[in-house]
Amino acid sequence: MNYKELLLHPRSLPFISQARFGVEREGQRVNFSGKLATTDHPEIFGDRTYHPYIQTDFSETQVELITPVTDSINELFKYLEAIYDVASRSMADDEMIWPLSMPPALPEKDEEIMIAKLSNFEDVLYRRYLAKEYGKRKQMVSGIHFNFEFGDDLLQSLFVQQTEFTDFAAFKTELYFKTAQNFLRYRWLITYLFGASPLSEDHYFVGKPAPAEPVRSIRNSSYGYTNHPNVKVSYASMQQYLTDIEKMVEEGKLSEEKEFYAPIRFRGGKRVADLAKSGIRYIELRNIDLNPYARVGISQAQVQFLQSFLMYMLWMEHDVAVDAWVEEGEQRNEHVSLENPMDQTAFYDEGMLLLQGMKEMLVALGQSERLPLIDDMIAQLDEPRETLAGKIYQQAQQTSQHDFAYTLGKQYEEESHERSYQLAGFRDMELSTQILMFDAIQKGIEVKVIDESDQFLRLQHQEHIEYVKNANMTSKDSYIVPLIMENKTVTKKVLKEAGFRVPEGAEFTSIEEALNAYPRFAEQAFVIKPKSTNYGLGITIFKEGASLEDYQAGLAIAFREDTSVLVEAFMPGTEYRFFVIDGQVKAILLRIPANVVGDGKRTVEELVAEKNLDPLRGSHHRAPLELIQLGELEQLMLKEQGLTIHSVPEKDQIVYLRENSNISTGGDSIDVTDEFSEAYKQIAQQAVEALGAKISGIDLIIPDKDIDPQTDDQAYGIIEANFNPAMHMHVYPFAGQGRRLTMNVLELLYPEVISTPKKN
Amino acid sequence: MNYKELLLHPRSLPFISQARFGVEREGQRVNFSGKLATTDHPEIFGDRTYHPYIQTDFSETQVELITPVTDSINELFKYLEAIYDVASRSMADDEMIWPLSMPPALPEKDEEIMIAKLSNFEDVLYRRYLAKEYGKRKQMVSGIHFNFEFGDDLLQSLFVQQTEFTDFAAFKTELYFKTAQNFLRYRWLITYLFGASPLSEDHYFVGKPAPAEPVRSIRNSSYGYTNHPNVKVSYASMQQYLTDIEKMVEEGKLSEEKEFYAPIRFRGGKRVADLAKSGIRYIELRNIDLNPYARVGISQAQVQFLQSFLMYMLWMEHDVAVDAWVEEGEQRNEHVSLENPMDQTAFYDEGMLLLQGMKEMLVALGQSERLPLIDDMIAQLDEPRETLAGKIYQQAQQTSQHDFAYTLGKQYEEESHERSYQLAGFRDMELSTQILMFDAIQKGIEVKVIDESDQFLRLQHQEHIEYVKNANMTSKDSYIVPLIMENKTVTKKVLKEAGFRVPEGAEFTSIEEALNAYPRFAEQAFVIKPKSTNYGLGITIFKEGASLEDYQAGLAIAFREDTSVLVEAFMPGTEYRFFVIDGQVKAILLRIPANVVGDGKRTVEELVAEKNLDPLRGSHHRAPLELIQLGELEQLMLKEQGLTIHSVPEKDQIVYLRENSNISTGGDSIDVTDEFSEAYKQIAQQAVEALGAKISGIDLIIPDKDIDPQTDDQAYGIIEANFNPAMHMHVYPFAGQGRRLTMNVLELLYPEVISTPKKN
Repeated sequence: MNYKELLLHPRSLPFISQARFGVEREGQRVNFSGKLATTDHPEIFGDRTYHPYIQTDFSETQVELITPVTDSINELFKYLEAIYDVASRSMADDEMIWPLSMPPALPEKDEEIMIAKLSNFEDVLYRRYLAKEYGKRKQMVSGIHFNFEFGDDLLQSLFVQQTEFTDFAAFKTELYFKTAQNFLRYRWLITYLFGASPLSEDHYFVGKPAPAEPVRSIRNSSYGYTNHPNVKVSYASMQQYLTDIEKMVEEGKLSEEKEFYAPIRFRGGKRVADLAKSGIRYIELRNIDLNPYARVGISQAQVQFLQSFLMYMLWMEHDVAVDAWVEEGEQRNEHVSLENPMDQTAFYDEGMLLLQGMKEMLVALGQSERLPLIDDMIAQLDEPRETLAGKIYQQAQQTSQHDFAYTLGKQYEEESHERSYQLAGFRDMELSTQILMFDAIQKGIEVKVIDESDQFLRLQHQEHIEYVKNANMTSKDSYIVPLIMENKTVTKKVLKEAGFRVPEGAEFTSIEEALNAYPRFAEQAFVIKPKSTNYGLGITIFKEGASLEDYQAGLAIAFREDTSVLVEAFMPGTEYRFFVIDGQVKAILLRIPANVVGDGKRTVEELVAEKNLDPLRGSHHRAPLELIQLGELEQLMLKEQGLTIHSVPEKDQIVYLRENSNISTGGDSIDVTDEFSEAYKQIAQQAVEALGAKISGIDLIIPDKDIDPQTDDQAYGIIEANFNPAMHMHVYPFAGQGRRLTMNVLELLYPEVISTPKKN
Repeated sequence: MNYKELLLHPRSLPFISQARFGVEREGQRVNFSGKLATTDHPEIFGDRTYHPYIQTDFSETQVELITPVTDSINELFKYLEAIYDVASRSMADDEMIWPLSMPPALPEKDEEIMIAKLSNFEDVLYRRYLAKEYGKRKQMVSGIHFNFEFGDDLLQSLFVQQTEFTDFAAFKTELYFKTAQNFLRYRWLITYLFGASPLSEDHYFVGKPAPAEPVRSIRNSSYGYTNHPNVKVSYASMQQYLTDIEKMVEEGKLSEEKEFYAPIRFRGGKRVADLAKSGIRYIELRNIDLNPYARVGISQAQVQFLQSFLMYMLWMEHDVAVDAWVEEGEQRNEHVSLENPMDQTAFYDEGMLLLQGMKEMLVALGQSERLPLIDDMIAQLDEPRETLAGKIYQQAQQTSQHDFAYTLGKQYEEESHERSYQLAGFRDMELSTQILMFDAIQKGIEVKVIDESDQFLRLQHQEHIEYVKNANMTSKDSYIVPLIMENKTVTKKVLKEAGFRVPEGAEFTSIEEALNAYPRFAEQAFVIKPKSTNYGLGITIFKEGASLEDYQAGLAIAFREDTSVLVEAFMPGTEYRFFVIDGQVKAILLRIPANVVGDGKRTVEELVAEKNLDPLRGSHHRAPLELIQLGELEQLMLKEQGLTIHSVPEKDQIVYLRENSNISTGGDSIDVTDEFSEAYKQIAQQAVEALGAKISGIDLIIPDKDIDPQTDDQAYGIIEANFNPAMHMHVYPFAGQGRRLTMNVLELLYPEVISTPKKN
């Protein structure tokens, strides 16, 4: 088959970049002493029998981060970064993920290397067998497994142009075999470029033969974690491959199929034998060392290179004497793995031919944007010090490989914690959605962004699918609920009918109609507000009644914003946000206008600057609090208090910089959940129930929270109920305890995965 | 108590107009022969044990229309008009509601007057007793029962100013007694002005004494339906009133309390005795004859007058010798009832004093807008021919009272059917909401408009409350469903994952990104469209692929409308709207662009004018179809076909006037529900289920509906799903069978009230 021709066909070209990707990244949990962690896999991840993202490999300390299958490299790295963040932040405070394939110094005693404590006993037995067969220490090496699938449209368009195969599955199998054969022949180049295990640490090669370090890749050499030399499997055809594996198992050379540690694996069915029927669905490269310069162990450039390299393996001619061809590749790889990383490789010329050939292919396929990447690899071929192994070795020379790795690991750990309210990879999404995604990944609920700009997620656990928008809009609320809540008049009518105290008032659709009602309001405290705006626009408050003129002016302002205007009794008191999920108040928040507290020394400007250093403060709603501004409005507010930004407030003097308490204008969020009696919580819960909502932020005006609302019917008033209430301000408040509302949302959706004890 | 002073207090004045109203209007069902209907009360109304709006009174032919309690006269008439519409349209095709208090000629035989066929046997027994005690014929008279309650804020503000009562309920009782005493004294004026039963028809006074006709009001005289003269009840105090009624029942002069047919009744508890404890909540006037000049039997002016009259009864001095006072009133009323309607009344001077007094009160209370109404009554006092009885008598003289009443009844009946898709009283609301309200009223589900401009309804049956917006947004759909549907990308992803055929494509957020994908689309039929607009703006269709230039131009147009743009394969075929409720396709609609069919004689302009005569066509979405325009776009479309508005199309030639098939631009709606095989319906049902929706209009492109979609996977494509699908176009299509989708919505919400047999 001339794949080159098929790939170059105009029908194929539109899909040439199409592919699917997945990564499994292993890494040792290490404590701040630089030794293997002695703790168990964090309990917070829940059950390892189903966790799709965070697993353990051989040992209890060996974390495995698994991405879902993605349609782009960009998406792959979003997940990889996110899962890394979750894993890193969920571990014990003094632990980090070791950035090297080679483990740190191992314990002297074998029994101190903990085999993973899996609940499935067969899995434990298998690990015990491996420990016995290969030794525990070799199992402690970590790497990247890279799953790759050519895009379906691309494969289909290749398929329809050829005539050799009538069965699509058989065609795909042939295509992946061709790719694999060439890959095995030329993979030494990957080892040269990406090999990153030049040196071992203490107690790795205990009682075993060791190579003469430094090398390019201990892990990819025969000193790495490979099958015994008597395991031989042919890649000549699917039939031969399957027969050989079966034979190895029958002869006891392998305990089972999955013990066949090839640098490339064919994937498709549950068992290797299924491949014969269903065909190969994707391939798994297992020869990628951890790149310590990338936090997640592999860089986007590496993945791009691997994609083009695999395409080139398909594109290239290959030898029909497959077994010899593969054997030659094995030998070259072993040679390159054990070369000194500072030396030019023995196969420099072949490497150069490959890279030049890749460039020609990329140009022919219209992928010139990848040429600089290949040029960078050519430079590394010319200059071995620039390869990963070369760089690691050089840095190890300066102090030690351990210190170098420790410093990097610690740095990545700190990066994960720096803005712990954000989720790497998804920082463009709204904060509440980022936090919910964090929780879902942590708990092993599959999460897929189906529309990033719309904050639309698809969650899945086994067969149970849920869609979530804005982290709080779910299938659990009924459609009529947000419609009730977005209409202030309807909300009030429903609440009033259910017996709750709401501001008395009326709705008007013309100034004339509203003017007729003037006598009703003239003498009392009241508010005029447009019916449907939410941002405080067009609102006038008369705390001591109003003259007819002022009333008319207030109406005019409100009618500028809406065709319907509400005039309502004004309720004095403090406004609190009660966040109710599934019938329970889970958080109560007090919002205070932007302010600083004086120390008798510093100016307002200096105090603001200091307050803004809080890492919780950011901008554009991508942080739980906003930076305090010193703009026109704030300066006007200062002026009204006889101050400027250069004034020095007295010690403990609170200087407000805003009238409004919105978090979005620098306000402080204060969690006061535990300060309220059950009686107030019940009012909020029952009001939300009356509105029919499962998730709502309901705003109560409370003059004095120490008054018992059961004895005083003026103790509270309900201002409004929100169907899209912000959650991040509760999770990361300025003061008081954070409330993980996102986890409560997940619990509402997936009680089978998450269940916390309910209050009675 | 000086109520006048209390009413004039500045604290009371803001609430002076506040009151609550309710009307029960009786009327005989009469057929087009002008005789009592011989049919039963229409079955479509369901069970009379709970119907809140449409009942029967004494006889099976005597319909009783009952409004809910309303807070304004305006609202009262909305309901009265609506309930009249529903009753009138639900009766047999040849029946109408008799507009007079006096029934038409009654059957000669007593047994032909059917007692109401109620399911509660005690109710039937009571009617049998009444027939025996008073004779069936007197029971056949109809009238208005007018329920009136002073506003709660008004009563509260009167209460807080006085010192005599400490108990609010006792205060209210006293207040209503005062009102009732004066009302009984002066009600003769109501009889004079609103009396409207001057003449009886054949077989009414059979074997009973009859007055000398014409009179002002047979119904309000002793010849009307009154208790026997030995029934005497004092209105001196609540205690006396209750004791007397009890005594009458004990002595057997009344079978039970409710047989006490006073012109005014006190209402509060379930039984009269409850009034002692709970106080009077409202009063019921029973002395209002049907006004035949108002379709609903009473006019807004009459209700306004009654409100002011009752206020004046409270305002006026009254005599402390209550029994004599009331007795004097009784005598005057009897006298006035039996006066010749063309004569001046004997109590002209007292009448004039009353009306002048009312004017003074209205001025003092700041209700001058009602002065013209009183002046109108003064004119009627001066000119008896202008009273209702006077007018009816004069018209009866011209032909006969029967013919006059028949003509009016027929006219009202026709008015009800004229635009039978609308609901009188609520014509400003969206059509689907009007239709749903019609169905709810018909089926006896209580309906309250809680926000008219927002199409927000509150439905109730017994304890079961539902809120509905736009007639199709309910508690039965989950919140995430409309969010999925309003996002085209998310909708497609969900449908595709569930195995449905949707247009292949991609979403782009920049022109650059979209241009990179050009090769994917260049050679195929495709569409470029903005992600979130719905009105066809910014869409470009390339039916045969596109050049890069055209592609770029299409993208620019789409990006003008939205920041996200979809490029999708174009699916050829006809678009059908499948309306799915609760898992069942209830209607399928084909929409055809505005068009006329030639007859070889008339011009396009004439054909359009004729087509626009269809009463289904109107404007601004208040009719099922829109009027066809002949504006710029239509003329351009004609020009492209080589025509003008003056061209004469050949016989059967279809001339399209629009490219788009929207109903809102004059398109035709064609019901094709029965033309589709079950297989297509199942696709729509399953797709809507996959989206999780209970109510949805889903648009399928189908090249050929005779192709079995189970054998051809290209047989359909899903374009979009709508969460707020129009219903009226299905209920009243241009052609084909109407589908009462609103009733299906009610069935979804109230299966306990409405249940139609399900298809298996």
